[in-house]
Amino acid sequence: MKAAIVTVGDEILIGQIVDTNAAWIASILAKEGIMLVSKMTASDDLDSIITAIDRALTDADLVLMTGGLGPTKDDITKNALEKYFGGGFTFSQDTFDRIEKLFIKRSIPISEAHRQQCFLPTIATIIENQMGTAPGMWFEKSGKILCSMPGVPHEMKYVMKHGVLPRVGTMSKIVYRQKTIMTAGIGESVLADKIEPILDNHEVKIAYLPSHGQVRLRLSREGAKGSEKEVEAILQKAVTETVEAITPYFFGYDDEQLESHVGQLLMKKGLTLGTAESCTGGYIAHLITSIPGASQYFRGSIVAYDNGIKQEVLHVNQVTLETHGAVSEGTVQEMVNGALKTLKCDVAVAVSGISGPTGGTEDKPVGTVWIAVGDKGDTWTTKFLFTKDRVLNIKYTAVYALDMLRKFLSAR
Amino acid sequence: MKAAIVTVGDEILIGQIVDTNAAWIASILAKEGIMLVSKMTASDDLDSIITAIDRALTDADLVLMTGGLGPTKDDITKNALEKYFGGGFTFSQDTFDRIEKLFIKRSIPISEAHRQQCFLPTIATIIENQMGTAPGMWFEKSGKILCSMPGVPHEMKYVMKHGVLPRVGTMSKIVYRQKTIMTAGIGESVLADKIEPILDNHEVKIAYLPSHGQVRLRLSREGAKGSEKEVEAILQKAVTETVEAITPYFFGYDDEQLESHVGQLLMKKGLTLGTAESCTGGYIAHLITSIPGASQYFRGSIVAYDNGIKQEVLHVNQVTLETHGAVSEGTVQEMVNGALKTLKCDVAVAVSGISGPTGGTEDKPVGTVWIAVGDKGDTWTTKFLFTKDRVLNIKYTAVYALDMLRKFLSAR
Repeated sequence: MKAAIVTVGDEILIGQIVDTNAAWIASILAKEGIMLVSKMTASDDLDSIITAIDRALTDADLVLMTGGLGPTKDDITKNALEKYFGGGFTFSQDTFDRIEKLFIKRSIPISEAHRQQCFLPTIATIIENQMGTAPGMWFEKSGKILCSMPGVPHEMKYVMKHGVLPRVGTMSKIVYRQKTIMTAGIGESVLADKIEPILDNHEVKIAYLPSHGQVRLRLSREGAKGSEKEVEAILQKAVTETVEAITPYFFGYDDEQLESHVGQLLMKKGLTLGTAESCTGGYIAHLITSIPGASQYFRGSIVAYDNGIKQEVLHVNQVTLETHGAVSEGTVQEMVNGALKTLKCDVAVAVSGISGPTGGTEDKPVGTVWIAVGDKGDTWTTKFLFTKDRVLNIKYTAVYALDMLRKFLSAR
Repeated sequence: MKAAIVTVGDEILIGQIVDTNAAWIASILAKEGIMLVSKMTASDDLDSIITAIDRALTDADLVLMTGGLGPTKDDITKNALEKYFGGGFTFSQDTFDRIEKLFIKRSIPISEAHRQQCFLPTIATIIENQMGTAPGMWFEKSGKILCSMPGVPHEMKYVMKHGVLPRVGTMSKIVYRQKTIMTAGIGESVLADKIEPILDNHEVKIAYLPSHGQVRLRLSREGAKGSEKEVEAILQKAVTETVEAITPYFFGYDDEQLESHVGQLLMKKGLTLGTAESCTGGYIAHLITSIPGASQYFRGSIVAYDNGIKQEVLHVNQVTLETHGAVSEGTVQEMVNGALKTLKCDVAVAVSGISGPTGGTEDKPVGTVWIAVGDKGDTWTTKFLFTKDRVLNIKYTAVYALDMLRKFLSAR
């Protein structure tokens, strides 16, 4: 089964928005074992949309369209679909009732534009959209399928998950399974050296998805419908052996976040956390507190951008700063101790480095970072040399700090 | 002049990467006054690429292709181009010399795959790529143009800026000018009510680009080549009147960031800043320190996630916390005073709120946030009610806090 995507909208063509819908649909189709063969964007113009529909149905058996279903004048996807498939329009009372209910709840009067939205191509099967006003539509012609969905991402995802995928799933002749292995603190090529000899013995596909100090490994396997159990067994064996080979770097499955994993570890062990940040400027605390429920284990952070704060709030020794500098093992060790005391936390992480673009020296070039993690009994420290880029250095430092924290907590 | 984009690569079709190249090219074309009429993605397959080339040349006068020019086996764009345009391949000694130079500098031996990269379609005009091995290529046929560029973003941008745009610019018959007006602290619809009556008197196009408490307004105007001065004068008049009508919300032009603007204000006035953050968990400090040179005015932050830290490090009164709660005017006022004292800064901003998903009450639902900005003499406070979503609440709070800080500093 081959698929094509058509996205509609001038806002994509003028670069005002990045087309994230298409990437999301593409990744969902890949999981279902459906091959995406082409992807196109049409402007808010009748001929342009019809041309795109025709091309997509030439390329593929399943066409997924998004956008152009709203109540305003520039939303003309349903007109293009009716012109292409024929059959006229019919008023959908079900859709109107649903919109009315939604609007009464929100105390908004229904406008004429929303009433017009309920006139839908007669031959379309309507797919309910519980997230907004515009429903999805399902068309069939000469054994091929076209689904039209709203462009608002959470509405599109709802229609795709609840209306489109269940119908498409029963039609696909392929079974596809995948598992994502989450790693941190190891680069793509070193990881590949460790796992490729193992995976040579397993018939699974592997994809590396790297981002700033983390690599997601996606193992996948497909087979004919009916071979689900066999496919799952082969995949599971490969996953188990892969994880065994990379234990120190492995922390979870299927897009679990490192900051969420660290939070889980803290809760399991009943420990509280604090951070003392220089070069990351609060970014580590931000990552930790972006996880719901972080207040159960996170006490706070001292962002000591200025050396005065390092001394006064974190009690870093003036002698240490003068002798070794703010970016030094001694400083981050003392920052950990200061954080434990000031923030009254059980475990603390501290970072100090030169993010750039200026401030580098021959001894300590831009990208030099010291990270420390510790509790009352023990402190671990490591020196890193990241990049020349300020934003990247902040991100790398945060990920490596969280990873050191993960290892420290796991060893407790 | 109409343009179309063709991106090549399975990694886009399986959703492994979001196609940011296309959005960047689209925004650059919009600035040049070239209308993008379609956009398509082809898989790494000869027929699929040729079909896309043919369709794009049907739609447009200028086709911009990216991707599939690398040295590996799945890079077949040049083969597709040769098959489409004909004329065979020729070894490009210039390209080889450039790659050799680059590799000697990096002490890497040239591989056979890189030598093969230098065989290019004979009829193509080569566009130098100083950023990588694969050059860009320029084809002309029946008055239409096709440019093939590498897929690596910084290489594509180099080829586009230095090779493609100068050539295309001289061909365009249209002059296009635009100016972006940056606003904060006002919603899209209220902004529209204020400026649309004014812009009715000016013949300029307007686009609203909203994101979490900020709206970028793009005014643009086009005309025939030769009318540059007239176009610029009309645009400038509209910009001036627009800015006058929204003075309290206006802070800069052309994608200046709010955090950078605040930094400039602090430097100009010779003031230092500190933050005291509860619900934002360090995100405000992160935004401020993401700007190079922030250490000149930013002293640090106390992320007081736990009430204990609010009391001990920021000296918030236990009575205030018990009587009014952590999310209250009194608490953020005392947090500002505590930050001024502990961080020894001239100006401080403090936030406390309920980000969610849990923690809301009837009186203080999820999304309730108090923000305060102050110095030794004066403190401003405001209460906000944002959304039900944790991540959005953190972002909104940070932007509104920076905006209050901007207004506070501007009034000093």
